[in-house]
Amino acid sequence: MKKTLLSLAILTSFAAHADEGMWMPQQLPQVAKQLKAAGLKLDPNTLTKLTEFPMGAVVSLGGCSASFVSPEGLIVTNHHCVYNSVAVNSTPQNDLLANGFLAKTRADELPAAPGSRVFVTEEVTNVSDKIIDAATAKLTGKARIDAIEKNEKQMVAQCEKDPGHRCTVASYYGGLEFYLIKQLEIRDVRLVHAPPSGIGKFGGDTDNWMWPRHTGDYGFYRAYVSRDGKAADFSKDNVPYVPKHYLKIAQQGVKEGDFIMVVGYPGRTNRHRLPNEIAWTFDWNYPAFVKASGEILAIIDEQTKNDPAARLKYAGQIAGVNNYYKNRKGMIASYQDSDILARKTAEHNALKSWVNANPARKAEFGSSIDDAEKLIAQRDQEVKKGFFVSYATPRFLGSARTLYRLANERAKPDAERKTGFQDRDTPRLTSVIAGQDRTYDEKVDKALVLNFLKQYLAQPQAEHNAAFDAALGVRSGMSDAELKAQLDTLYAGSKLQDKAERLAWMKKSPQEFKASNDAFIKAAVAMYEPGLKQEAEEEELGGKIQQAYANYMKAKIAYMHSKGQAVYPDANSTLRVTFGKIAGRDHGADGTGSWTAFTTVKGVLAKHTGEGEFNAPERQLAAIRAKDFGKYADPKLKTVPVDYLATLDITGGNSGSAALNAKGELIGLAFDGTLDSIISDWDFNKANTRDIQVDVRYILWNMKHVDHADNLLKEMKAE
Amino acid sequence: MKKTLLSLAILTSFAAHADEGMWMPQQLPQVAKQLKAAGLKLDPNTLTKLTEFPMGAVVSLGGCSASFVSPEGLIVTNHHCVYNSVAVNSTPQNDLLANGFLAKTRADELPAAPGSRVFVTEEVTNVSDKIIDAATAKLTGKARIDAIEKNEKQMVAQCEKDPGHRCTVASYYGGLEFYLIKQLEIRDVRLVHAPPSGIGKFGGDTDNWMWPRHTGDYGFYRAYVSRDGKAADFSKDNVPYVPKHYLKIAQQGVKEGDFIMVVGYPGRTNRHRLPNEIAWTFDWNYPAFVKASGEILAIIDEQTKNDPAARLKYAGQIAGVNNYYKNRKGMIASYQDSDILARKTAEHNALKSWVNANPARKAEFGSSIDDAEKLIAQRDQEVKKGFFVSYATPRFLGSARTLYRLANERAKPDAERKTGFQDRDTPRLTSVIAGQDRTYDEKVDKALVLNFLKQYLAQPQAEHNAAFDAALGVRSGMSDAELKAQLDTLYAGSKLQDKAERLAWMKKSPQEFKASNDAFIKAAVAMYEPGLKQEAEEEELGGKIQQAYANYMKAKIAYMHSKGQAVYPDANSTLRVTFGKIAGRDHGADGTGSWTAFTTVKGVLAKHTGEGEFNAPERQLAAIRAKDFGKYADPKLKTVPVDYLATLDITGGNSGSAALNAKGELIGLAFDGTLDSIISDWDFNKANTRDIQVDVRYILWNMKHVDHADNLLKEMKAE
Repeated sequence: MKKTLLSLAILTSFAAHADEGMWMPQQLPQVAKQLKAAGLKLDPNTLTKLTEFPMGAVVSLGGCSASFVSPEGLIVTNHHCVYNSVAVNSTPQNDLLANGFLAKTRADELPAAPGSRVFVTEEVTNVSDKIIDAATAKLTGKARIDAIEKNEKQMVAQCEKDPGHRCTVASYYGGLEFYLIKQLEIRDVRLVHAPPSGIGKFGGDTDNWMWPRHTGDYGFYRAYVSRDGKAADFSKDNVPYVPKHYLKIAQQGVKEGDFIMVVGYPGRTNRHRLPNEIAWTFDWNYPAFVKASGEILAIIDEQTKNDPAARLKYAGQIAGVNNYYKNRKGMIASYQDSDILARKTAEHNALKSWVNANPARKAEFGSSIDDAEKLIAQRDQEVKKGFFVSYATPRFLGSARTLYRLANERAKPDAERKTGFQDRDTPRLTSVIAGQDRTYDEKVDKALVLNFLKQYLAQPQAEHNAAFDAALGVRSGMSDAELKAQLDTLYAGSKLQDKAERLAWMKKSPQEFKASNDAFIKAAVAMYEPGLKQEAEEEELGGKIQQAYANYMKAKIAYMHSKGQAVYPDANSTLRVTFGKIAGRDHGADGTGSWTAFTTVKGVLAKHTGEGEFNAPERQLAAIRAKDFGKYADPKLKTVPVDYLATLDITGGNSGSAALNAKGELIGLAFDGTLDSIISDWDFNKANTRDIQVDVRYILWNMKHVDHADNLLKEMKAE
Repeated sequence: MKKTLLSLAILTSFAAHADEGMWMPQQLPQVAKQLKAAGLKLDPNTLTKLTEFPMGAVVSLGGCSASFVSPEGLIVTNHHCVYNSVAVNSTPQNDLLANGFLAKTRADELPAAPGSRVFVTEEVTNVSDKIIDAATAKLTGKARIDAIEKNEKQMVAQCEKDPGHRCTVASYYGGLEFYLIKQLEIRDVRLVHAPPSGIGKFGGDTDNWMWPRHTGDYGFYRAYVSRDGKAADFSKDNVPYVPKHYLKIAQQGVKEGDFIMVVGYPGRTNRHRLPNEIAWTFDWNYPAFVKASGEILAIIDEQTKNDPAARLKYAGQIAGVNNYYKNRKGMIASYQDSDILARKTAEHNALKSWVNANPARKAEFGSSIDDAEKLIAQRDQEVKKGFFVSYATPRFLGSARTLYRLANERAKPDAERKTGFQDRDTPRLTSVIAGQDRTYDEKVDKALVLNFLKQYLAQPQAEHNAAFDAALGVRSGMSDAELKAQLDTLYAGSKLQDKAERLAWMKKSPQEFKASNDAFIKAAVAMYEPGLKQEAEEEELGGKIQQAYANYMKAKIAYMHSKGQAVYPDANSTLRVTFGKIAGRDHGADGTGSWTAFTTVKGVLAKHTGEGEFNAPERQLAAIRAKDFGKYADPKLKTVPVDYLATLDITGGNSGSAALNAKGELIGLAFDGTLDSIISDWDFNKANTRDIQVDVRYILWNMKHVDHADNLLKEMKAE
């Protein structure tokens, strides 16, 4: 499991048993009894305080989770969460991905990938009645969305008056509750240590989502701030950030049956979607995504096979696509083998019967449920229409559209601008726009666009986006050669592949855009008005959905409460706690009868082939063969443990999350789930679901006996 | 497991239980009781008749095993046994490895790789007292080896007077027994069908020697003979060979616990080596091989990464090296985790005590045991000396040495020539020499030679081969640049990369060689006399070893018999039968608690990534997803089985062996063992050892539902 495309989910889930649940910290006292029974030794009340130990040590990287592990801003997370930072610092001559990286001194630390951030949560405030205030509650459609956005922006603007902070309004329980989250946004993030990919990505995409697993998925960043302790851009004068709290490394190893708790920022779950959303997702959306992803991987592979520099540029995208490719395929397979749709439909029908059985309930909820079903079907159709357009958009046409939108938004007062284009967004936008050529190769981009453009043009005319066709000068019936020639002309007519050129456009006026002859700028200008119109239509629909959906969820919560069942909100990229125990499984993958809870370095030797994805570094192999285990061998296993399974409820975004023992000490990092667990994003499967942690003993053993990162071990007091 | 480098082993083993043992067919009546108890329904006596059903259907491909499955010469074996034939017919434009191949008609069948042969065993005769006749028994050293070779050659020449036949004298029980084996040598072998590598090599080197396994390791040849039924070179006029017997496809599937019997040509086992041979192998020989193999793989990868045509040329070598690389590493790991050496040493000491406890035994065997230990230690030192020289020899210098040896041998009467250079060897030599450029790329060869030359030259001067140094113009202390320049001069000075040039040298006289200016021919001439001298020394040592070793083995057999234990000979590339049952294992690999006996197509879906080694063809994935299983689903598994485990005792050379049920019907093909089983080549491990078969139902399902090979299914009466 890797970085998730985070988005706010407006759904809820219902806790049936302790292994299920991504608890908001403030909810933990509600499950204090279960926590104690499971073995927690800390007072559950201490876990509710976000600025106290251990919660105060847990941070977000925006897509991944991480934790402070020293008083000098040292952060541990997954290797795949620092992967892009290693990739952008790599060259064919000095391949840090292959060789690994260790800063022996602070001066050797490298800037992380452009746009890298560390978010330290400082305050979380319930603002439900300010987001949907009395006036907003009366609105519908686009007006409702606009009002919510206006309220959110005001609140965020007010909050962000404190320099160096980023504030967000997160929606919980289907939009019934909203919380304002204030985070310190650390912008000077540096790469401190990553093991060679032969450790950090051992098993590669082959083993991704798999067990048995032998991946050493860890890496280290350090957060830097200005000398006066404020968030600041990269500067040599910056100093390490001093966190309020940091995690201590557990001195004692773990074993099967032990209590385990994972704290991080899960991205999104969909456990209470409507049956028609489930059917659409698994019958159309995921299969279409899987097909497109397979094509993307094949095209990048073909185009870069004789061009290692280009291949390196796409390493991040390959990893990302591969990850979701396997994820979605796994979910489709689990879904096809299951009765999920039938069961969800039955549950939904039961809810409707319960609503309709009582006139007051019917009056309050009846039409919302029907509306939600119809409106969502309508939205799904729109998503389908936009599917190929988004894949067929040249990378720098996308940039041009963003830049022109920015020029238009900049003409308005800051508070009235569209979210994402306010002054507060400029630093992030700048680093995204600046960094785009690092992950771009023209022949690859063109081949990808051509592939999807052909599929787009083969759709019925009614499914076309007329503005897109006109702006690109394409139409159904064009031959491959004609399309290729048209793309050649477009790409040759733009200078946006040049970083300085792109950055210059960040400051230009709409008039300058309109006067430009740059092919992608011209296309962006042509698509602008139709794009705004489409956006307004989407918002009109979105406002209606928000209203109907929130009310549907209110009905569902009431129904579940009527059956005596408690409720926790679906994941929405906010801080959550899940707890359970370290446990193998009594049925494994095809061909294996069961899974043990732990893997060991023995398996690294067995899987090592010396090439490709199974290529452990020779110095590690030598240490394993020599049984040079130091104090890191498990007393029962008699060797160094690598990864372990637990019954925890995690999802994308949890990557890099600290795994803590009953005393709140670091015992590993969550980094994956097994392929047949990920369907739990839609339907929690208690029997199968296992997440995967890298054992902190493996991390320390590698650092001590393989990579000799003694400076960091000393800093973490883990020598 | 893949093709083994076959060589005659002169050792024996002792049957302790039914799951252990590679039985000579004529021995089966000795274990008739166990066979019946295990479930065999055929009369064990019928299994002793090599020209009757089912033995008459089993053939050797020289390194792999195979079976006739139709009355028209259709042969089934493993995909990896037909791999080179697929590779040599592949081009970057028409990649049969990737796409698979199916001849829809006889006319579409393709010639197999040069040198491909089908050997049909016709007679096996005990010739022990003719090989070591009274005169030979009195000889020692080189004279003994020469006499044995002379007797063998006479016997072989006599036998091969029957045209189109190849005869071999195989040694059993440490040279106590010799058998003359007469085989029809079919030279017109054609490729009929191979599934795409995404099926036939699914899992690639990652899954090689692994469980769970999902490889469809099957492929088909057809044997052709002249219209009058004789072995003949390829000709359009040839007709399919009509075998005396062929295997019937089992109509009923198999399940865990079923009787299974595998019939084929296991290459070599080493179950009764001396302790010092074991120590030398695992402490020096295998580790040195593993290191060199890793370097070979890395160099080929580096040199061909931008040259797909060259990469294709080395596909066969990469597969072969990778296979042994993993095999040897697996054995080393098992060995290091075991008490093999201590146990073997204790057994050896017990044997010596038993010998020394009785004056007659001490007189007969005592000095032979001591001699064997000393002489073998001496031979091991010589092997070590030759190790780098062999890796550092340019491919076409090797060819030149073979060609010059041939020229010299051809000057003698046929009967006096060295084995391997007689007229009978010409066709095989010709196709080997002719085909060499198909698997050669100069930059790759040069990089490999340079790598090992540097290591060779870094050895102490006493370990050098002076003739080699002089012939190549190399010496210790040369810089990399000097070595490279010297190699460039040598390679540029030879025309042996040209096929016609090599073939022309097959007919030339020693005088013509001596007069040549070709760099490799000159080097071969210079190395000839020192090479003969070294060979004579090796034969002197070999003769002494043969004598001492046979007597040591005689002692060992007598000792085992004294303890009431039966004996079967070690594998020596001759026809053997092993039987046991289909069974999972209660402990699996690191991270899995157990292994089930069967894998299924579900696992293909789960492992499929769409690239690299896990890239099943889309048409197969679609059939799996659609549950388009026809009649091939297992009634209990509810899906198509792929591979299964059994308790059989097999080794390299068994690849492609028919797996038969209790009625002698084909139920699959043996193709691999698990990584922790292969140590059984040295020390049978009853608890761990499992071999892997591809289920015939998977073969048929792919042929029917994926590749539409209906013509072949009809021919096999398996529609």
